[in-house]
Amino acid sequence: MSEASQIVDGILAGDVRALARGLSAVEDGSPDAEPILKAVFPRAGKALVVGVTGPPGAGKSTLVDRITARLRKDGKSVGVVAVDPTSPFSGGAILGDRIRMQGHALDPGVFIRSMATRGHLGGLAAATGHVVTLLAASGKDVVLVETVGVGQDEVEIAGAADVVLVVLVPGLGDEIQALKAGIMEIADVFVVNKADREGVERVVAEIQTLLSLGDHGGHLPEIVSTVATRDQGTAALLEAIVSFRSHADKSGVAARRRLGQAEKLFDETLQDRLRDAVRERALTAEERQRTLARVAARELDPFTAAGEVVRRLLP
Amino acid sequence: MSEASQIVDGILAGDVRALARGLSAVEDGSPDAEPILKAVFPRAGKALVVGVTGPPGAGKSTLVDRITARLRKDGKSVGVVAVDPTSPFSGGAILGDRIRMQGHALDPGVFIRSMATRGHLGGLAAATGHVVTLLAASGKDVVLVETVGVGQDEVEIAGAADVVLVVLVPGLGDEIQALKAGIMEIADVFVVNKADREGVERVVAEIQTLLSLGDHGGHLPEIVSTVATRDQGTAALLEAIVSFRSHADKSGVAARRRLGQAEKLFDETLQDRLRDAVRERALTAEERQRTLARVAARELDPFTAAGEVVRRLLP
Repeated sequence: MSEASQIVDGILAGDVRALARGLSAVEDGSPDAEPILKAVFPRAGKALVVGVTGPPGAGKSTLVDRITARLRKDGKSVGVVAVDPTSPFSGGAILGDRIRMQGHALDPGVFIRSMATRGHLGGLAAATGHVVTLLAASGKDVVLVETVGVGQDEVEIAGAADVVLVVLVPGLGDEIQALKAGIMEIADVFVVNKADREGVERVVAEIQTLLSLGDHGGHLPEIVSTVATRDQGTAALLEAIVSFRSHADKSGVAARRRLGQAEKLFDETLQDRLRDAVRERALTAEERQRTLARVAARELDPFTAAGEVVRRLLP
Repeated sequence: MSEASQIVDGILAGDVRALARGLSAVEDGSPDAEPILKAVFPRAGKALVVGVTGPPGAGKSTLVDRITARLRKDGKSVGVVAVDPTSPFSGGAILGDRIRMQGHALDPGVFIRSMATRGHLGGLAAATGHVVTLLAASGKDVVLVETVGVGQDEVEIAGAADVVLVVLVPGLGDEIQALKAGIMEIADVFVVNKADREGVERVVAEIQTLLSLGDHGGHLPEIVSTVATRDQGTAALLEAIVSFRSHADKSGVAARRRLGQAEKLFDETLQDRLRDAVRERALTAEERQRTLARVAARELDPFTAAGEVVRRLLP
């Protein structure tokens, strides 16, 4: 039996070491990655995937920790994917967050994986999707995908979930409110964390104002207040998640979202294949460099250059 | 003479109405857009393109206004591209910023264009690039590209410039510092605006700490303090821009950056063409919907699906 198929059998049987090997294959871009992903794909549809996003300092990691603990009490197995930027600015804090999660380190029902935001953007989103696939195929009931910041890529990653939590805190200034703009549209449930601080009413009112402007398909996102450090509000948050999921299943929102995710996955994979085909059949690395140099010098426009490549590939 | 070639002649002659028509063609995705862009491409290499990014509230628009005024005094013509998010959160402020720029509205040596961040992401970056191309081809000496936020797409857009200014202000908390992480790496010149506020030394020290960690090819980015509302520091900022440009030209940084931009432009255009070819030759809209539905239901994995399309396209 090949190594890849051993890993596949292990993952589907819920073996932790096989899962770790599969994840490494995916992250390292090993030749085994594709056969593994292909084989587990049909079995990766059962987990509930929850995206958790919001500005740094909102307490997302602590919240994820509390959600994990409560799911474990209910007998659910949990996968956690933490998407971390590698910038020197925030490295320390995030490391601390991950260490906080170590409370679950000895629990075989919890599997935690950190992903760095290095490398290509589309690459990270795709890689995160693959990690979620493997965790789901290994039988995790719930997969939590936590992003550290609110960059476009991170929003996209958290947004590719069955339920998206946007975590805010009281006392954010207007400048941060503006930064958050892009993430407000993707929220299925709003979490106002650190709700023992002053200013909760103001944040809630701001969210309500924003919600009154939008169209939510007849289902207004719930706003849940939590104090994650004291495990307050976690049960209500889980109820809100379950309630959204049930609405999404009934209303067709879930089906539409799955279709959108399939579209992305298919388009990305097709694009990779076409890039390979161009390299193998129409444009050697050397020709490509010459073309790019001519475009950079404005001797050749990109439309003519691309048209020529397509003509060579598809005579 | 066709309409497109009339527009091209007008743009190259510096005619403002032809430029406005060309820009509309590009933004509306009209069939004239490509022939226009193709025809002006060889003549669009002379402008100095300056990207201006930083968190909301940093005073970027006022700074762009001051830079514009000073360039006009030096007899340079200026194009301004403002990339605005359309979120309800910040719409008002940005409108105000644009109105502030109206001081230049009657000056034929200044052309201002706002771009909304609606539509597809890659689409916005590409569309912004096309707008810069047209402004440059129309003879603008300097094109300023200002982004409102620090989302990944906006950072990418501002980063596709000859010189990138990152604008910060004193008094930002650690949370905002973390959000800014992604934009620190792309700065050629740091601007500490609102330098009449307390905390300038702290911001400068933070930037210096950050710079000491990185590799800058022997050219440490300058840090310039400004008070844009009182036009303080504008001259020093322009000197820093010119000095970076001269360094970039001599060191090969400028050439490398142009090559990177050509690569992006070529890859995006090629990708568009290949997508069209797939639609026309290998996968009808109906077949595509059926494929996506099967992937969403996990009956078909994306690797097998994409492989089949490539086999059809390239027998």
